[in-house]
Amino acid sequence: MYKELEGIIEREDKRGKTFRYVDEKNINDEDLKWADAYMSFYPVENFAFHQMKWVHSLGAGVDRYVKLDSWKDDVILTRTVCSFGARMSEYCLSYMLSELQYHVAFQKAQREKKWEPLEPVLLSSQKVVIYGTGEIGQSIAEMLKRFGVQVTGVSRSGKSNQHFHQVVATGDEASHVKQADWIINTLPLTPETNRMFNAEWMNILQGAYFINVGRGATVDTVSLIEAINTRRIKKAFLDVFEVEPLPQSDMLWEHENIVITPHISAVTTPKEAVACFFDTLDRIEADKPLENKVDLNRGY
Amino acid sequence: MYKELEGIIEREDKRGKTFRYVDEKNINDEDLKWADAYMSFYPVENFAFHQMKWVHSLGAGVDRYVKLDSWKDDVILTRTVCSFGARMSEYCLSYMLSELQYHVAFQKAQREKKWEPLEPVLLSSQKVVIYGTGEIGQSIAEMLKRFGVQVTGVSRSGKSNQHFHQVVATGDEASHVKQADWIINTLPLTPETNRMFNAEWMNILQGAYFINVGRGATVDTVSLIEAINTRRIKKAFLDVFEVEPLPQSDMLWEHENIVITPHISAVTTPKEAVACFFDTLDRIEADKPLENKVDLNRGY
Repeated sequence: MYKELEGIIEREDKRGKTFRYVDEKNINDEDLKWADAYMSFYPVENFAFHQMKWVHSLGAGVDRYVKLDSWKDDVILTRTVCSFGARMSEYCLSYMLSELQYHVAFQKAQREKKWEPLEPVLLSSQKVVIYGTGEIGQSIAEMLKRFGVQVTGVSRSGKSNQHFHQVVATGDEASHVKQADWIINTLPLTPETNRMFNAEWMNILQGAYFINVGRGATVDTVSLIEAINTRRIKKAFLDVFEVEPLPQSDMLWEHENIVITPHISAVTTPKEAVACFFDTLDRIEADKPLENKVDLNRGY
Repeated sequence: MYKELEGIIEREDKRGKTFRYVDEKNINDEDLKWADAYMSFYPVENFAFHQMKWVHSLGAGVDRYVKLDSWKDDVILTRTVCSFGARMSEYCLSYMLSELQYHVAFQKAQREKKWEPLEPVLLSSQKVVIYGTGEIGQSIAEMLKRFGVQVTGVSRSGKSNQHFHQVVATGDEASHVKQADWIINTLPLTPETNRMFNAEWMNILQGAYFINVGRGATVDTVSLIEAINTRRIKKAFLDVFEVEPLPQSDMLWEHENIVITPHISAVTTPKEAVACFFDTLDRIEADKPLENKVDLNRGY
């Protein structure tokens, strides 16, 4: 997307900074030496800090940056958040409503020209557990609460948060997960969340829907398929995968109770990316607090 | 549904009223003479008021009652509203999000095992025109506004209302309709709304989506199909029809850009119907104002 970023920055920015717009595969060491700051979805293969002061991730997921060896203490890592909350909320809501309003059943009935009423289920009857109580989790929780959904958050600390009816600490959530109609994962990928949704976890479930908008590698997909086949999970909506694009050979594509979307729940539009980049730049230069700064110890 | 109503009323009511629970096709004149009040989705063929003081419609649509000859001035007509606002809001939102999130395109891509990202469109970019600014229209407007949607109402009076960004009078809405991304009809069926959405009206449109949760006969379906074929209407979501169930021979079933649902956007659940009935009864007996009373001159 560097061409699009170039168009927007050159057209709209009046700050007078100098930019180099380079396709990731063409970035060379001279570029890296020249730069005070680096903005991309990921660090290029030959990435080195040199004189850099700031690295800005075009995506919300920063695991590939965090994994870099020897991050320099004085380099700030920030990420694009911006409209991700609204985007992920609408993604999740769209699939919740699609199920509760029986879109697929009515589609099938229409093909067969059958008038077969079913009573849609109101959101206010639903219980949702959201893994992750950061900006994105909060945004989804806030939206669902307005529809009368019962929302439980799961976080490392279990610290309460106004947007959730309750927040429990990771490890204490079993009773909530058991009763949930929907589980939504918004967690980043860290050593702790890697394969967090595994067979043991899935054994707690009693027929919930599962939505993954966090990271693909948080889920053990073999166990996921098994859990769907044994009806512990009713249906899974997956927007993120360990390997993307999802290989054609992957079993996930063909399962009738798995919905695959190509990592679009929180696309970064060039316009929003530029707005977020400059907002962050202005805050850094004015020495203001940064809400999108990554804590390298936590990894998100 | 009279059997279900009987179960709930006999189990839960402590008011001591006497009820007769009769299938509509078995109601006879003796039943009608006996009754102080009548509750059904519609008046039976041999309907007569006799000593009745109150008629309560189990649905929100009351056109079949209003059409009765010689309505007696002292008989109150009320209708079930209750959770219809929430139900219709979630119905409309489900199809809006399904389009904006490209559900059908991703479904097709998954069948073909293709990873084809498309950028979902945020609700906040959408302009919606809602016909009808009554309880249901307001409820939909309020919900959409929370997502940043621009909402224009169309009503007979054009009187402004807090839930809409603006309200215009019927006849003055052309410029708004022209720019709309979505048109939602919630209007009741009256002599004025009969075939209101006709060829002339559709000629104003420039590619909007059309959702009908009002009444089927407000739409001229021949013109609707023509408007879809000429792309004046992008896609139509129809929950109500002039004849229900929609006959198998109807052309609407087969059109690829028409979504048919079997009048479920505002189902009356027996439990809600009973709650609404008793709430209305208590208000009548206490001589309190009735929000669900039908104005027989207006017809809704």
